[in-house]
Amino acid sequence: MSTVIRGGTIVTADLSYEADLLIEDGRIAAIGQGLVGDSVLNASGCYVMPGGIDPHTHLEMPFMGTYSADDFESGTRAALAGGTTMVVDFALPSPGQGLLDALQMWDNKAGRAHCDYSYHMAVTWWGEQVFDEMQAVVDRGITSFKHFMAYKGALMVNDDELFASFRRVGDLGGIAMVHAENGDVVAELSARLLAEGNTGPEAHAYSRPPQVEGEATNRAIMVADMAGVPLYVVHVSCEDSHEAIRRARAQGKRVWGEPLIQHLVLDESEYFNADWDHAARRVMSPPFRNKAHQDSLWAGLQSGSLSVVATDHCAFTTEQKRTGREDFTKIPNGTGGLEDRMPVLWTKGVGSGRLTPNEFVAATSTNIAKILGMYPQKGAVLVGSDADLVIWDPEAEKTITADAQQSAIDYNVFEGVQVKGLPRHVLTRGVVAVRDGRMLGAEGHGRFVARQPRGQV
Amino acid sequence: MSTVIRGGTIVTADLSYEADLLIEDGRIAAIGQGLVGDSVLNASGCYVMPGGIDPHTHLEMPFMGTYSADDFESGTRAALAGGTTMVVDFALPSPGQGLLDALQMWDNKAGRAHCDYSYHMAVTWWGEQVFDEMQAVVDRGITSFKHFMAYKGALMVNDDELFASFRRVGDLGGIAMVHAENGDVVAELSARLLAEGNTGPEAHAYSRPPQVEGEATNRAIMVADMAGVPLYVVHVSCEDSHEAIRRARAQGKRVWGEPLIQHLVLDESEYFNADWDHAARRVMSPPFRNKAHQDSLWAGLQSGSLSVVATDHCAFTTEQKRTGREDFTKIPNGTGGLEDRMPVLWTKGVGSGRLTPNEFVAATSTNIAKILGMYPQKGAVLVGSDADLVIWDPEAEKTITADAQQSAIDYNVFEGVQVKGLPRHVLTRGVVAVRDGRMLGAEGHGRFVARQPRGQV
Amino acid sequence: MSTVIRGGTIVTADLSYEADLLIEDGRIAAIGQGLVGDSVLNASGCYVMPGGIDPHTHLEMPFMGTYSADDFESGTRAALAGGTTMVVDFALPSPGQGLLDALQMWDNKAGRAHCDYSYHMAVTWWGEQVFDEMQAVVDRGITSFKHFMAYKGALMVNDDELFASFRRVGDLGGIAMVHAENGDVVAELSARLLAEGNTGPEAHAYSRPPQVEGEATNRAIMVADMAGVPLYVVHVSCEDSHEAIRRARAQGKRVWGEPLIQHLVLDESEYFNADWDHAARRVMSPPFRNKAHQDSLWAGLQSGSLSVVATDHCAFTTEQKRTGREDFTKIPNGTGGLEDRMPVLWTKGVGSGRLTPNEFVAATSTNIAKILGMYPQKGAVLVGSDADLVIWDPEAEKTITADAQQSAIDYNVFEGVQVKGLPRHVLTRGVVAVRDGRMLGAEGHGRFVARQPRGQV
Amino acid sequence: MSTVIRGGTIVTADLSYEADLLIEDGRIAAIGQGLVGDSVLNASGCYVMPGGIDPHTHLEMPFMGTYSADDFESGTRAALAGGTTMVVDFALPSPGQGLLDALQMWDNKAGRAHCDYSYHMAVTWWGEQVFDEMQAVVDRGITSFKHFMAYKGALMVNDDELFASFRRVGDLGGIAMVHAENGDVVAELSARLLAEGNTGPEAHAYSRPPQVEGEATNRAIMVADMAGVPLYVVHVSCEDSHEAIRRARAQGKRVWGEPLIQHLVLDESEYFNADWDHAARRVMSPPFRNKAHQDSLWAGLQSGSLSVVATDHCAFTTEQKRTGREDFTKIPNGTGGLEDRMPVLWTKGVGSGRLTPNEFVAATSTNIAKILGMYPQKGAVLVGSDADLVIWDPEAEKTITADAQQSAIDYNVFEGVQVKGLPRHVLTRGVVAVRDGRMLGAEGHGRFVARQPRGQV
Ligand SMILES: [Zn+2]
Ligand SMILES: [Zn+2]
Ligand SMILES: [Zn+2]
Ligand SMILES: [Zn+2]
Ligand SMILES: [Zn+2]
Ligand SMILES: [Zn+2]
Ligand SMILES: [Zn+2]
Ligand SMILES: [Zn+2]
Repeated sequence: MSTVIRGGTIVTADLSYEADLLIEDGRIAAIGQGLVGDSVLNASGCYVMPGGIDPHTHLEMPFMGTYSADDFESGTRAALAGGTTMVVDFALPSPGQGLLDALQMWDNKAGRAHCDYSYHMAVTWWGEQVFDEMQAVVDRGITSFKHFMAYKGALMVNDDELFASFRRVGDLGGIAMVHAENGDVVAELSARLLAEGNTGPEAHAYSRPPQVEGEATNRAIMVADMAGVPLYVVHVSCEDSHEAIRRARAQGKRVWGEPLIQHLVLDESEYFNADWDHAARRVMSPPFRNKAHQDSLWAGLQSGSLSVVATDHCAFTTEQKRTGREDFTKIPNGTGGLEDRMPVLWTKGVGSGRLTPNEFVAATSTNIAKILGMYPQKGAVLVGSDADLVIWDPEAEKTITADAQQSAIDYNVFEGVQVKGLPRHVLTRGVVAVRDGRMLGAEGHGRFVARQPRGQV
Repeated sequence: MSTVIRGGTIVTADLSYEADLLIEDGRIAAIGQGLVGDSVLNASGCYVMPGGIDPHTHLEMPFMGTYSADDFESGTRAALAGGTTMVVDFALPSPGQGLLDALQMWDNKAGRAHCDYSYHMAVTWWGEQVFDEMQAVVDRGITSFKHFMAYKGALMVNDDELFASFRRVGDLGGIAMVHAENGDVVAELSARLLAEGNTGPEAHAYSRPPQVEGEATNRAIMVADMAGVPLYVVHVSCEDSHEAIRRARAQGKRVWGEPLIQHLVLDESEYFNADWDHAARRVMSPPFRNKAHQDSLWAGLQSGSLSVVATDHCAFTTEQKRTGREDFTKIPNGTGGLEDRMPVLWTKGVGSGRLTPNEFVAATSTNIAKILGMYPQKGAVLVGSDADLVIWDPEAEKTITADAQQSAIDYNVFEGVQVKGLPRHVLTRGVVAVRDGRMLGAEGHGRFVARQPRGQV
Repeated sequence: MSTVIRGGTIVTADLSYEADLLIEDGRIAAIGQGLVGDSVLNASGCYVMPGGIDPHTHLEMPFMGTYSADDFESGTRAALAGGTTMVVDFALPSPGQGLLDALQMWDNKAGRAHCDYSYHMAVTWWGEQVFDEMQAVVDRGITSFKHFMAYKGALMVNDDELFASFRRVGDLGGIAMVHAENGDVVAELSARLLAEGNTGPEAHAYSRPPQVEGEATNRAIMVADMAGVPLYVVHVSCEDSHEAIRRARAQGKRVWGEPLIQHLVLDESEYFNADWDHAARRVMSPPFRNKAHQDSLWAGLQSGSLSVVATDHCAFTTEQKRTGREDFTKIPNGTGGLEDRMPVLWTKGVGSGRLTPNEFVAATSTNIAKILGMYPQKGAVLVGSDADLVIWDPEAEKTITADAQQSAIDYNVFEGVQVKGLPRHVLTRGVVAVRDGRMLGAEGHGRFVARQPRGQV
Repeated sequence: MSTVIRGGTIVTADLSYEADLLIEDGRIAAIGQGLVGDSVLNASGCYVMPGGIDPHTHLEMPFMGTYSADDFESGTRAALAGGTTMVVDFALPSPGQGLLDALQMWDNKAGRAHCDYSYHMAVTWWGEQVFDEMQAVVDRGITSFKHFMAYKGALMVNDDELFASFRRVGDLGGIAMVHAENGDVVAELSARLLAEGNTGPEAHAYSRPPQVEGEATNRAIMVADMAGVPLYVVHVSCEDSHEAIRRARAQGKRVWGEPLIQHLVLDESEYFNADWDHAARRVMSPPFRNKAHQDSLWAGLQSGSLSVVATDHCAFTTEQKRTGREDFTKIPNGTGGLEDRMPVLWTKGVGSGRLTPNEFVAATSTNIAKILGMYPQKGAVLVGSDADLVIWDPEAEKTITADAQQSAIDYNVFEGVQVKGLPRHVLTRGVVAVRDGRMLGAEGHGRFVARQPRGQV
């Protein structure tokens, strides 16, 4: 059963041109004029782009005896609805738990995914078992290892563990990743704020100022440099962190920064909303920043010092958020975004003239496919590539609202945002998951994507 | 008559993979495994890359009643010998001369070219005729306009002319280019040096310090920003100029910098050679710089703040250089490099680990093809692209020497440099111009390449 | 007749301590405890500081057949009222006019001054006469030479003239000064704005964006570096210009930047006031900028990359401003500030915690006295220094209003600003000009201050 | 008994002028012309400057069961011989030892000092006792607290301790100081080097690259910013660290950097000397760097981003150094410099034109007196200031050699350096300790200098 995408303009990270696409067996079989297939998708007036890849999600993530509300089923359904055809989630071993054991747990959850997926492996503690199992993890096609410089007493690793792990990752040809905030300082600031009676969500923002993120980013870059490993900094939210990355890149270091769509568009004023629920729903780490930091992130995308736009999708219901009613440090950290990343970035980026359509593709798909070692299987419109595609209608419009979303939660941080530019059709390995803007879905269709170490970028 | 390139690894700006290539009618007809054609070129052990594009040459350039020694015949022969399959030369109107008139003169010279070529148009004076003819120039496919901020009393334009011309270029969807040195200050410094009896070639370097280049680059960037036009800075030789470009790019401005292979590899000590001929042969503008500036240029290529490696090939014989025996300001400015750019950059860049093979392709071919609006006709290995290809043998070695070169001049500034990595075969639109390292040539085969305004980068 | 200042805290650029001061013959005769004199000024609760020095005024400046409204009488009266005890004005030769001739004209005007004064000499054209007379100017104690990079067709000099003059200044041991805006680009932008029908005062701001100031500053720094002369950049209004200065200073260059009190406190929104008069009264060059630029200027004062706070006091009445009713380029450029600089800087700087009292003294008096070669005659509280002193009451308050000002004009750009911190007494060479906040005045008391070349900073 | 210094030029941090000085009771009693006293010191042809202050010494420092070889007797004798009239040493509590207890130990050693002295208090561990005793330490006039970010397992404190201590210092009005190197990474690099058989002194340099210093400096700045305390970074040796300081200062933060005379003049090539003793004698932390880093330090002194030149004088004999014969990590860290700092800085700084004499005074004396809260008792030539003075003969010359030095050790890292500019006379609180270049000494004359919190800079 072959499919032809007809009449569109193919838009890749470095080129736009008019051509049809033929899809067979889940892959792109031909690109050219006048192609013929068993079924036809009309792409006239549309851009045909590589499906989005969100490299930063936390689906069904265990948290204080419960789980983040979107699992691989609802999460990947949301992803497809927004034009994202692949997610990379984080396998998070508990203290003392083996890496392979954690991987098994994640595999169990991922079976219901609608679209393809991969994992990053988190290094949440250090020891011989971790060191040893890292080889097996890479052999399974998981080449990126996440480290938390914050969440003291829980996920955080110290500098000596960071260095040891980075060296191991480097030796295995992988990529080191960091959540960069100085956990010691965050813990002290949080304790003081609570002691002074600041228990509300706005104190969350006060407890994690841009400085602690900038510092940790700078430190991670140095450790990576000494350890000889490329570094990927997740959720870069501010100029402080961006500056450290920019400086490193100007010295020729291999460092990438990932802003989130939330930080690009939303700002710290959200935490001052009189409605506790409103503010708490926006609690995530790093917190939203001011407009000057937003400008810095956009300039980074324009100039290439920042590489990838992600979501850190980690959805908690209002009910779950209320765990922190009396103490902001107990509000589960995280917001949604999977369904909205592509339309919001298109609207605020391409629609405003800040980004070209090609840069949009690079930031949402191609760059991360290269960084993570799965290009051109993913992130490309080339013969032989997986047919993960989005047929994008630049004229389609809607207003974002929780009522209409795929996500399992009861609100949306982008509520009320008008977007122009939406998927008309979305294909995951050749299967049409969204047709004419309607979700068809394909529960269980998603497969794990094994990735290559020692990538080309 | 079809040709297959068999057994190589295709290396593009963003990907390396093993595949054969089928060439028909001067274009790439297929990429895949086990392709069959009328003739076969063996690429085993080789990289199959887009042929080099040198965007900065001066072939048969008029100069003080004579011409630069390499014309389109010998120049493009040298190009092909080194793996470069396209040159972009500069049409230089005399004061008062119309642009179309100058273009006719360049067309007359270019007929003998072995490989494809295009032109940049220089704006060496300003007036209504220039303004008017710029439209026709763009219509002919020449979308890049060069401006000289130095050579006072000759090619130099003032800031108001620069601004007016930049605005016109912007309106036409073109790209502004600059030779960036502060011509007023250079003239004053030169006059003073001569007055003090410093007449030798080393005074040439003293008369054009990095500061005057950095200043002019910064100024051109501001004028381009105000005029709303993308800017390409030719022959970036120093940190001062690179810093200005880096700063502009970090602000999201569309500015590209072009270091020359000479500045990446050779340094100012050459001017202190006791042999006048040795020093004078290296006289070019900007002059060679010190090691710290070289480091800056390499870091720029690594981090992407510099985009393209060129040559400013403008070859004068020792005899011609001796015109300036008594007065360094009369030494014709320029050095060769067309034949050596690719092997020297590969050796010093890829061989040293500073650049990946993909980055080499980007810097020598793909980036400039995109910038100048001729991608993917040129600079790509894609079905439909022109079969301008180099089959690169990374193990082949030689020592550069003027005795063995294609260029018409009697010396080589890279004399004695050992290179590892050389073309095995070179094709220009499907025609084999170099086979097994031997020059076959194809005089008159080259064609003018018309380019598109409003490019994608 | 001796005077004792009793009971205050002496505050200098580098020290605060409690002591009395004895003044004899216009100079400080002793500093210590329990000093006795013929008369006593009560300084209890006050800071005793060097009187302010405003290095940038245009009193009775010729302009389009009229003059700026404050002359040396009203201008220096306003100065003293605000705690400023010395002004440095600009002698502006007309095209072709000799420097000494211009100096004579300024001497004629200055006779009525209430406080001491000096001049900078402007180099508004270039020629042998100018070159020759510069020596005599320096011999007269005028060691600073101003150059306009804007006002094309009037005061502006080109780069070659700039370089020649800078070299001459350097040889004479003087200081080069620049009004840094790219006059060519300003002229083009202005013409286009007018052509498009933008004739109002807001177009003045559009015609001189921060970029043109940043560029010119960067260029002046390069020319000064090549010419071997220290550089003083007047009215630094934006980050672009400040960045160029900061970068130069980090390289060890002797460059100083002068923000104005206006740019520190007022912003571009003033130009959008619906009242034409309101907006036009704020027209000056460079224009007011946005808040981000203001933050940059304050950070510069805090970190020392900017050195001196001035006013560019050049007062025009509303009537005079209305000359530009139909054409913003005809609005006379300039605002007042002499009377308000010290209280406003104290309130917004010291009062907000951004500056220490010692830094306030440095920025308003000591730094410029050193830069201009008249320290410690001026700018110091040392035995032997001129008794130009302000006894500053940090608790005194008022609201600024034109109704109560000394200046001859009918409005005040700081109208309505609340200040806390005002002069209680002001002395000019030992003579009490302000007592208990009341102006006594001393018309004709002011004397010319000759300055030394080759200063210590 | 009064003394007059006659015929010299007084040089302070901001002024040079000819005057005599009268000294009575250890203080400056008068400055003026034709002063008369009981005895006269001839200063003709000399500069009369504030005596040097070395804010970074380790005299008789306990180390692995022994002590650094120069104690307060020989150390301060060496200081005076070179024109330094005050030292600030570090009281170093052992793990668990109280601060006041440590202070008692240091008081016991300091009794033999020839010149005045003070201490910094090191915070080498954290706990309630330390927190509590800090108040008493400040009350005793010790307002600066040193923290080690390196020497893991010994002196090093972690980020949470750093933050807690910085906050306490800030609340007490003191200054936080750091030895900035990432101790975790240094420990890992050292272990790996040893494991690979790199046991020699050159491995010391490899184990502490500029990156680990730059990172720690950046981190300390962030922690100080969050804690609200001014920061002083000792022994800034490289661009990485300097850049972090420069960036912080440009944001208006109160951060000072202290380069050592050793890092300004000596470079890493010393560690490659074939003579083990030669190399080991230069082992200190941070290690010497390359020329590019030296240039950065000099530019910092010129532009003011670095404030103070010190020595970190910590002298070990060759015998002591040989403890590390088999293992570079066991080589006692430290070099001498007390006697040589002033002549070497004068020669390489003032003699080369990089610094003015006034800047020399600022960097060697006045700046640190202000930073540490003892200006103008120390660091000034003002009536009432302590008569700690050096009469400096800019024409005197010598070659530095261990044979002629005061220090107790058997070598000198500046051996063979030619200096021009030496003390003719040196006074410590009015007592002549060096007369006509001959050491008279004054064992036990030195007194403890109590300092003020909440300084003016
Ligand atoms: Zn995170
Ligand atoms: Zn996350
Ligand atoms: Zn050129
Ligand atoms: Zn050229
Ligand atoms: Zn001006
Ligand atoms: Zn002015
Ligand atoms: Zn130390
Ligand atoms: Zn130390």
